Amino acid sequence: MTTNPRYEILFEPVQIGPVTAPNRFYQVPHCTGMGVQRPHFQAAMRGVKAEGGWGVVCTEYCSIHETSDDVPFPFASLWDESDVRALHKMSSAVHEHGALAGVELWHGGSLISNNQSRKPTFGSESRPHFFDPVQSRKMDAQDIRDFRRWHREAALRAKKAEFDIVYVYLNHNYLMWEFMDPALNHREDEYGGSLDNRLRLARELIEDTKEAVGDSCAVAVRYSLTGNLENGQLVRDDYCEMLERIADLPDLWDITIHDYPTEMGSSRFVKEAAQEQVVSFVKSVSSKPVVGVGRFTSPDTMVRQIKKGILDFVGAARPSIADPFIPTKIREDRLEDIRECIGCNICYAHNSRGAAIRCTQNPTMGEEWRSGWHPEKVPPRHADETVLIVGGGPAGLEAARTLGQRGYTVTLAEAGTELGGRVTRECKLPGLAEWARVRDWRLEQLNKLANVALYLDSDLGANDVLDFEADHVLVATGAKWRADGVGFNRLSPISLADGIRAYTPDDIMAGDLPDGPVILFDDDSYYMSACSALVLRRAGRAVSIISTHSVIGPWTQHTEELSFTNAQLMTEGVALHHNEVVQAFDGNEVISHCLFTGEEKRRPATGLVTVTARQPRDRLFFELADHIEAQGSGPSITRIGDCNAPGIIAHAVYAGHAAARAIGQETQVKKREVSCLHQD
Amino acid sequence: MTTNPRYEILFEPVQIGPVTAPNRFYQVPHCTGMGVQRPHFQAAMRGVKAEGGWGVVCTEYCSIHETSDDVPFPFASLWDESDVRALHKMSSAVHEHGALAGVELWHGGSLISNNQSRKPTFGSESRPHFFDPVQSRKMDAQDIRDFRRWHREAALRAKKAEFDIVYVYLNHNYLMWEFMDPALNHREDEYGGSLDNRLRLARELIEDTKEAVGDSCAVAVRYSLTGNLENGQLVRDDYCEMLERIADLPDLWDITIHDYPTEMGSSRFVKEAAQEQVVSFVKSVSSKPVVGVGRFTSPDTMVRQIKKGILDFVGAARPSIADPFIPTKIREDRLEDIRECIGCNICYAHNSRGAAIRCTQNPTMGEEWRSGWHPEKVPPRHADETVLIVGGGPAGLEAARTLGQRGYTVTLAEAGTELGGRVTRECKLPGLAEWARVRDWRLEQLNKLANVALYLDSDLGANDVLDFEADHVLVATGAKWRADGVGFNRLSPISLADGIRAYTPDDIMAGDLPDGPVILFDDDSYYMSACSALVLRRAGRAVSIISTHSVIGPWTQHTEELSFTNAQLMTEGVALHHNEVVQAFDGNEVISHCLFTGEEKRRPATGLVTVTARQPRDRLFFELADHIEAQGSGPSITRIGDCNAPGIIAHAVYAGHAAARAIGQETQVKKREVSCLHQD
Repeated sequence: MTTNPRYEILFEPVQIGPVTAPNRFYQVPHCTGMGVQRPHFQAAMRGVKAEGGWGVVCTEYCSIHETSDDVPFPFASLWDESDVRALHKMSSAVHEHGALAGVELWHGGSLISNNQSRKPTFGSESRPHFFDPVQSRKMDAQDIRDFRRWHREAALRAKKAEFDIVYVYLNHNYLMWEFMDPALNHREDEYGGSLDNRLRLARELIEDTKEAVGDSCAVAVRYSLTGNLENGQLVRDDYCEMLERIADLPDLWDITIHDYPTEMGSSRFVKEAAQEQVVSFVKSVSSKPVVGVGRFTSPDTMVRQIKKGILDFVGAARPSIADPFIPTKIREDRLEDIRECIGCNICYAHNSRGAAIRCTQNPTMGEEWRSGWHPEKVPPRHADETVLIVGGGPAGLEAARTLGQRGYTVTLAEAGTELGGRVTRECKLPGLAEWARVRDWRLEQLNKLANVALYLDSDLGANDVLDFEADHVLVATGAKWRADGVGFNRLSPISLADGIRAYTPDDIMAGDLPDGPVILFDDDSYYMSACSALVLRRAGRAVSIISTHSVIGPWTQHTEELSFTNAQLMTEGVALHHNEVVQAFDGNEVISHCLFTGEEKRRPATGLVTVTARQPRDRLFFELADHIEAQGSGPSITRIGDCNAPGIIAHAVYAGHAAARAIGQETQVKKREVSCLHQD
Repeated sequence: MTTNPRYEILFEPVQIGPVTAPNRFYQVPHCTGMGVQRPHFQAAMRGVKAEGGWGVVCTEYCSIHETSDDVPFPFASLWDESDVRALHKMSSAVHEHGALAGVELWHGGSLISNNQSRKPTFGSESRPHFFDPVQSRKMDAQDIRDFRRWHREAALRAKKAEFDIVYVYLNHNYLMWEFMDPALNHREDEYGGSLDNRLRLARELIEDTKEAVGDSCAVAVRYSLTGNLENGQLVRDDYCEMLERIADLPDLWDITIHDYPTEMGSSRFVKEAAQEQVVSFVKSVSSKPVVGVGRFTSPDTMVRQIKKGILDFVGAARPSIADPFIPTKIREDRLEDIRECIGCNICYAHNSRGAAIRCTQNPTMGEEWRSGWHPEKVPPRHADETVLIVGGGPAGLEAARTLGQRGYTVTLAEAGTELGGRVTRECKLPGLAEWARVRDWRLEQLNKLANVALYLDSDLGANDVLDFEADHVLVATGAKWRADGVGFNRLSPISLADGIRAYTPDDIMAGDLPDGPVILFDDDSYYMSACSALVLRRAGRAVSIISTHSVIGPWTQHTEELSFTNAQLMTEGVALHHNEVVQAFDGNEVISHCLFTGEEKRRPATGLVTVTARQPRDRLFFELADHIEAQGSGPSITRIGDCNAPGIIAHAVYAGHAAARAIGQETQVKKREVSCLHQD
């Protein structure tokens, strides 16, 4: 039963071909860094989504055959019976909570390199990989027959693994897209040329799949449109036309837009997408149910999408990662408890780094199996003990919330005049406004906990802390940016003339900007250099970046922000100099040298900003440690977040959560998926 | 018994602490992309090394604890009992052939990011990772105690896994190095400051390890020196001094030099290293046996190293990958059979891509378990059949050699006037001379095979091939570079004015160079753009590269050639323009646009070279297929190498080998290490 009748429509069952989803909440396929390499991680994580109320829960991309091997990236697969067993764990975990399980069958075509399987890749044409030094084979008639057979066999394995929904995956520039896109298909056979020819393989694949498993499984098609609008109307193009020709062939349409960095755009560059015109086109030409995404977290927006006939299912990837229990919270009318996605794309980034998914907002994401963590439940306190947390940044707030939920008596002391720490400072940087949700959700939750007290303006020394006589102390005092240029590429300070200082991101965020022209020395790999440069530029300074990297923010390749980052800087007039290390600054000139050749460069500047490394604020921790050692007794002390090891906000939230769970608990048994490798 | 007494010294047993190596051939630790994630791959591959005669065979870097997690890169580990079982497979496979097994215990310190374990990293100081947005914690006293305990526990697990040699790993910028290097250690406790303080942790670790396992295991130390020479003499520095202070503490010294891209330098940039002065220093101060590397493949050089007292063991990583049977071939005085490493570093590159090791020269490397391939043995022919191979490049030569070894009657027809195909062309490019070994070794082997006939100047058409009436035809006709600029980033041809052509690497290699100034459009990720630009530059042209990438040859980060590549181009005066795509050329000006902003750029040029993609020469294959289909019978036909899917030379050799093994064989059962994951 839904508490608030306004949202009842979201909980209606919806038929999809031969199966019926229990409600309209649909977790679309999304990467996890788990694949079949970490099947227990996979099953437990997807199971929690179903438990949280998602009516449909899908896998990530699932390779149909060893000619589609995406190593070094983790991916699911249905190559053989052992894969069936692996993914059956996932479908079972989903079914346990009454949801439908979907699997996204996939072939990467020319966009993969088969690094591990060592099979030649193939595609609509012979095309180079974007990075690895391999080029695909143009598929011949036998290749097409093989591919169709492999897809059919994988669909049968999907059925055997008890999936309810089997995808035919037509977009994201993988194999099927190569055939449909006229720029990628210059074939002269019956699979190239006319629109119908380019659509032929897609049509055959959908028919093959329906024929193979359509009796008991729904066949979904994932498809993208350009999303180009003219006067607010979708521009009708080949992709609309193709969709129209097979409009009623699949049992369900899962619709996205072409440009991937926009489709899964970070909140820094892409605001809640207005995909309505795109998706409503599909409903206008197909009688089949449609699912689409939009980083939806507001139930009223969801209801409107359904009522206006734009969507049948509320699709989600990232919101379901940040909060697997969104459906339950809507059903119970606990909207303020929804932990909203901040759109940072850390989830996707770690898949690209070969590791299991994680989330800035939801520290339990990816830890469901390994650590046994649940996003909503925590173990009760082990004893009637008190905890003092020093520092109200993301680590401190998450620790306070979790310990409060566990029932401890918690005091959080923040030295400054507002809570949130770096989140509060950084969310004012260009594009990062949504990151404030990390703070806001926690403050909302803390408000409900009578056993947690929050104090501002409380700059505690070691004696203050000890006088407090808490049983446990968590030190979460953060870090500050170094002003000496030391970091990965510089091991000794920049030579500064007497009386000359370098500014840091902390200064920029505090509104203390140098006069221009300014040179920013970038030895960071993520967002801080770009954001700091934009603040300076927008304040009217002439700005150049001298970077140790060959692009600004190379790590943002993993959050799909790299192109946006560099384009934005260029467009706003920030000059970029790459592969150099700054050596000296005298107030008039910056001297640097090339990392490749050692060549010296000199550039005029009156201000220097360094974005290189951070200095943990760990003095309090060490003073406490010394006192406790000297007196032979005292509270347990733990440092968490940036004062321990400076990282991203996701690390701080995770550290706060982990420390809060650890109090009074046996150390978790380490669980590595890889360990079951060694049993035979 | 050694056939040639000159080499007998190489086969003397040598004592290392409590164990004795059967000879002086020592496979030093090297990456494999196998780690504990692919334990069967690992065991089978190392076992073949031992079978080939290496007296000592070591693992790659082996993590001692989950705080040292190098995901996304594969690594060995001894975290727990399941790891003991995994690595015991490897030690057993090595012992089976009478060799000693060594394990390189490792902690990554600040140079790793613990992407999967999510533990904070730690080091001598708090230091940012070079890429991931994390920074380590400065180790405190408890961290140092923990680290020593974990190392000791891992050493005990190594003993349990029956390793004979346990490493203390002091170099390669990992944790131990951070303590020793004054630039990375500004600590004020007893582990920082003076040379003895910086050496303290190393000394303790060696002592701990000897105490824990020294009764039955040798304790080896891997260590590096700067290798700086003055007047041919090693410059005595801190690192010499530190080694001297612990000269007789370990049972064996495994010596390298600091700079990693130089230590494992590709043959393109680093010639057989003269490390003699470095290594002989160690012998001059220590009574313990010493192993060092030098990409040794000549037994006379090896003997000289021993006789001159420079080394006790002939160390090898890459030569043992290219030919695991070097020791056997020396013992049997079959020196011409040694398959010499070409120094391309493809072995290392694929570890960095998360995949199992491979080798350009040795197509069986990494396939010992999965495919059941042996580097020296092939299955005999299944029937008295004939094979025609069309094309004498690396794929064709390797197929001919392997089929000849199997006993088939083989004819190889090459259209041109010399054998080797792209190898013969490319080995004349700057730095690639050693790559000719791919051709030369195969020609040497083919010379011995009376059942293989090689024909030059034989440009066969489909009718010629069919008239030949072979049972099997392998088409290995290669590929040519496209002259239209189409590749990954351009899907349509560059707009060229009437009568204006673009040159390709094939033209450059044939000596057909455009007049300057020349612009080279680079949409390739590996070596061809840099090498082509150097040819033009050295022929006196003014050369600019307009690249779609932000560095030239981004993939060479995986072969440790990236810095060298870009430095060389800059130093020789090649101008570099990044993140652009060439649009048009009229004979006077090249128009390009920025990939980030779309901004148009115009640059004067009278010549344009494109390095973008290749066109497979597959016409013969398709003509044959059509004929055979039309007449309803004919030979089996298979296309291999670049005419199938253009790749690197390693792909071509592998494809030739695989096709040669496949004839008359049941298709190999696909073996994925990951499949055993799914058993529980």
